[in-house]
Amino acid sequence: MIIRLEQLNPIIGDINGNLTLIEEAIANAEADNVDLLVLPELVVCGYSPMDLIEHQSFLDTVYQANDRLKVNSRDTAVLFGTITPNNNATGRNCFNSALLVQNGYKIAEVHKTLLPTYDVYDELRYFEPNNTFECIEFKGTKIGITICEDIWHNFELPYVTYDVNPAKELVERGAEAIFNLSASPYTKDKPHKRQKMLQQHAQRLGVPIFYANQIGGNTELVSDGDSMTISSDAEVVGRAPLFDEAHIDFKWNPKADMLENVGPEPAEVSAEIAQMFNALRLGLQDYLDKTGIADDVVLGLSGGIDSALVAAIATEALGAENVVGITMPSKFSSEGSVTDSEQLAHNLGIELHEIAVKDLYDQFNVALDPLLKDSPFGVAEENLQPRIRGTLLMAYSNKFGNMLLNTGNKSELATGYCTLYGDMAGGLGVIADLYKLEVYEMAHWLNEEYYGEEVIPSAIINKPPSAELRPAQKDADSLPKYDILDLILEAYIEKRLSITEIADQGFDIDTVQEIVALVDRNEYKRFQAVPAIKVSDKAFGSGRRWPLVQRWTSSRN
Amino acid sequence: MIIRLEQLNPIIGDINGNLTLIEEAIANAEADNVDLLVLPELVVCGYSPMDLIEHQSFLDTVYQANDRLKVNSRDTAVLFGTITPNNNATGRNCFNSALLVQNGYKIAEVHKTLLPTYDVYDELRYFEPNNTFECIEFKGTKIGITICEDIWHNFELPYVTYDVNPAKELVERGAEAIFNLSASPYTKDKPHKRQKMLQQHAQRLGVPIFYANQIGGNTELVSDGDSMTISSDAEVVGRAPLFDEAHIDFKWNPKADMLENVGPEPAEVSAEIAQMFNALRLGLQDYLDKTGIADDVVLGLSGGIDSALVAAIATEALGAENVVGITMPSKFSSEGSVTDSEQLAHNLGIELHEIAVKDLYDQFNVALDPLLKDSPFGVAEENLQPRIRGTLLMAYSNKFGNMLLNTGNKSELATGYCTLYGDMAGGLGVIADLYKLEVYEMAHWLNEEYYGEEVIPSAIINKPPSAELRPAQKDADSLPKYDILDLILEAYIEKRLSITEIADQGFDIDTVQEIVALVDRNEYKRFQAVPAIKVSDKAFGSGRRWPLVQRWTSSRN
Repeated sequence: MIIRLEQLNPIIGDINGNLTLIEEAIANAEADNVDLLVLPELVVCGYSPMDLIEHQSFLDTVYQANDRLKVNSRDTAVLFGTITPNNNATGRNCFNSALLVQNGYKIAEVHKTLLPTYDVYDELRYFEPNNTFECIEFKGTKIGITICEDIWHNFELPYVTYDVNPAKELVERGAEAIFNLSASPYTKDKPHKRQKMLQQHAQRLGVPIFYANQIGGNTELVSDGDSMTISSDAEVVGRAPLFDEAHIDFKWNPKADMLENVGPEPAEVSAEIAQMFNALRLGLQDYLDKTGIADDVVLGLSGGIDSALVAAIATEALGAENVVGITMPSKFSSEGSVTDSEQLAHNLGIELHEIAVKDLYDQFNVALDPLLKDSPFGVAEENLQPRIRGTLLMAYSNKFGNMLLNTGNKSELATGYCTLYGDMAGGLGVIADLYKLEVYEMAHWLNEEYYGEEVIPSAIINKPPSAELRPAQKDADSLPKYDILDLILEAYIEKRLSITEIADQGFDIDTVQEIVALVDRNEYKRFQAVPAIKVSDKAFGSGRRWPLVQRWTSSRN
Repeated sequence: MIIRLEQLNPIIGDINGNLTLIEEAIANAEADNVDLLVLPELVVCGYSPMDLIEHQSFLDTVYQANDRLKVNSRDTAVLFGTITPNNNATGRNCFNSALLVQNGYKIAEVHKTLLPTYDVYDELRYFEPNNTFECIEFKGTKIGITICEDIWHNFELPYVTYDVNPAKELVERGAEAIFNLSASPYTKDKPHKRQKMLQQHAQRLGVPIFYANQIGGNTELVSDGDSMTISSDAEVVGRAPLFDEAHIDFKWNPKADMLENVGPEPAEVSAEIAQMFNALRLGLQDYLDKTGIADDVVLGLSGGIDSALVAAIATEALGAENVVGITMPSKFSSEGSVTDSEQLAHNLGIELHEIAVKDLYDQFNVALDPLLKDSPFGVAEENLQPRIRGTLLMAYSNKFGNMLLNTGNKSELATGYCTLYGDMAGGLGVIADLYKLEVYEMAHWLNEEYYGEEVIPSAIINKPPSAELRPAQKDADSLPKYDILDLILEAYIEKRLSITEIADQGFDIDTVQEIVALVDRNEYKRFQAVPAIKVSDKAFGSGRRWPLVQRWTSSRN
């Protein structure tokens, strides 16, 4: 039989639009005589619909769509992810399900067993878990159907250890292959990790695995696709590209133990920094496409590397004609602030405007003088400048409809080295989950590998990082050097190590204590931060739920 | 035996500070010859520690505290809420538990069964649920111990229907009373609902219920205490006051069927609007106390009712000497903007400053002129004013350390009738979960019942609501009247009704459609909103998880 894994890009809540995508895929599969078309998890409603699920009118629309897909099904069987009702007297209202439909009938309805509740996931908030296992008979073959987390069973998962392994349960009941429908978001190294996980399963269970994952950006999360088929001897038989709509086809004859790739050559997995770039590019693109709030963006260009990188990503995502930069020198700005930005804008081919901040800054000081009187220059005065810039950028955004891009990085956001309502403003945080060293790495990679020429000016890459909010200010005056800071941050935020454990890795314990305190103390800023595209295992945002008011920091060791 | 229910106010993560609170309560109970002291849920670590729980060093500290309480325990038995480790091979790392300790021994360890995952709750993210039931033998009596949600089993709960009723299981196993340890947040009408729920249990199960709830503000959530004892014939035998640290004592002889209040008279439950006021007052007080970021606050006084109400709440919470108002008239401000604010500040006894916004507004127009050119006055120009004000207020806050209070209400936040980085700025949203009509109701109640005189000037209460961002602007120009708007918002946000269902309640369907679209479209603003004190069943914030990018609105009916 011919099996097709299709990685679509559904939109959350857009049931009609998603039906159109799905029905096109079905029509193509029928034309190509595909026997079984496999679509991603929750493809009917997008992932994750979140509290839309608490609205019965939303659920009813999804159920109607399920019915339409069943009624219209023909010879090509379709296995798709959706929500189905829980008709039992107790539990949550619905299941995260896979439906198999063919020739107007529902052949199978399978519910997700392992419902993640760590990091960004809230699945036990919405879905009742499955706890029975049964194989599906399809064309004389027994197949086992699983959904996303079901296949990750205890493979490097944080915090929870599941007591049941759905794929194993199904193979023990005779499954000759495991199918998995996913809406799995990209994180660094995920394609490699995913392959390893699937190969381990195939090897242990002795059956092939067909894995179909969605692609697409949904605010914080960007799914990377990477659908693949693994043979029973753990070979990658075929693999779809990352971050692109695509399908891959396989000829499978379980009785003859034959599994063959009849689609394109397996896609190569690119280097990690390239994956990250593509995740950010698609995340930004889809944010604009799916909200429909703007085709164009605007951002402040400071002459620093963060805004330069965001400008480059935006240009690749949206086209140079849809990106506007604004340079806003103050009295503390270096000369390069403007000239380097001009060079960058020229190289990228984007429009650049200049607005001087000096007069506004002076006017604020005049207005505030009766209250602030002769107080010495301090944080209040420093913060005035980014807030004036934020106000100017938002005025441009409000006037012309360009969405303001936020250009803050994760190291800043972690330590609070950023100004609320100033440089923290914007519609989307493009690089907010990149540590400063990763910002450098991506800028270098862009020039050296992606562009093959110096598009991001070396003057921008090589200057010492500075917020330029007071004379001759450098990041290094307030923070440890980034090659120390970023490692401490990662150990604390992503590895969740204690201060002592981090210090034991070779860092000064006072520095570690200070950084950890900075991170915790600045939770109030992150509470009001922009939504940010996630590429790490632990991003700030919905996956890190930190009590805003807590005293753990002050007492910890 | 003498039983004491103690409502403490622990601080999240402050294990040492909480131990001090607990040990004081124990010493007092011992001095008063109490046999059993009952403390709230998670009193050792505060509720909710959220992702602190993913840090092993945090858990270890909690476990050490448990041990200390056990080792130091004497004749007075102590039943307290805490985290205990899950030593099984699978599941989550820990339990939400109640420990009963006496004379250096652990007499019982009970785990929470029903772990809520709706609204603000994420308990299955952190805790392994209990699924076995056993009574505890204490002084020859069998008692059943439950934790918070366990006792709410299917009593008007949203979304989930539990299949097990812990209190019933325990009574079936011989429990002669049910104890409940809670960290239950206040919502409107909760004290009444709670009493009804406890009475229903007592009646059905035929045993008394001892209910100990914490008090205190923890960012969004304010626990109201309201600890009480219900007799087996469903009488309220004793009740602690709302929003205050307190304890209540009972003499109980189960063999003689004797249950007697030996503490103060049962506290009266105040009117709902008074409860709400006290929740906001305590929420604000505790936010400052527990963060320690400021003793003082600053807020913009517009001459409107929202900022007037917040100023009054802040004055009652913190004292007049700790509240600073700033009036910032622009060219579109009515005369009352300043004079009414002056009258209010005078009545409250708070400091008031004035900063004119006009010159700054003109200067922004000069700076932006080359870009905005001859474009007509619009949203960009309107928004400049609140952003200038936000910048001025933050400058004051940064200079003097006063935390900026946000004064937006729920109707504004719902419809997006507010400006990001402008009037949406601040450290805490004091009335962000109050619909506009509730703002009026509380202002009237303050004057008429609380103060007994006109402290909030009638000129402020009676003027038509306006943002004053363009000439002669009124809220009613852009929004339906609040007595219609608020009802539609409540039906959509809190009751989760569909557009048709709302219209069926007697509203124009186009108006309903428009309002629902406004609510959904403005999710991006709320994503960056301040933390807000919750008093409703469904507040914006961590309890309402809405996909930022979704198209359900555009297709719905």
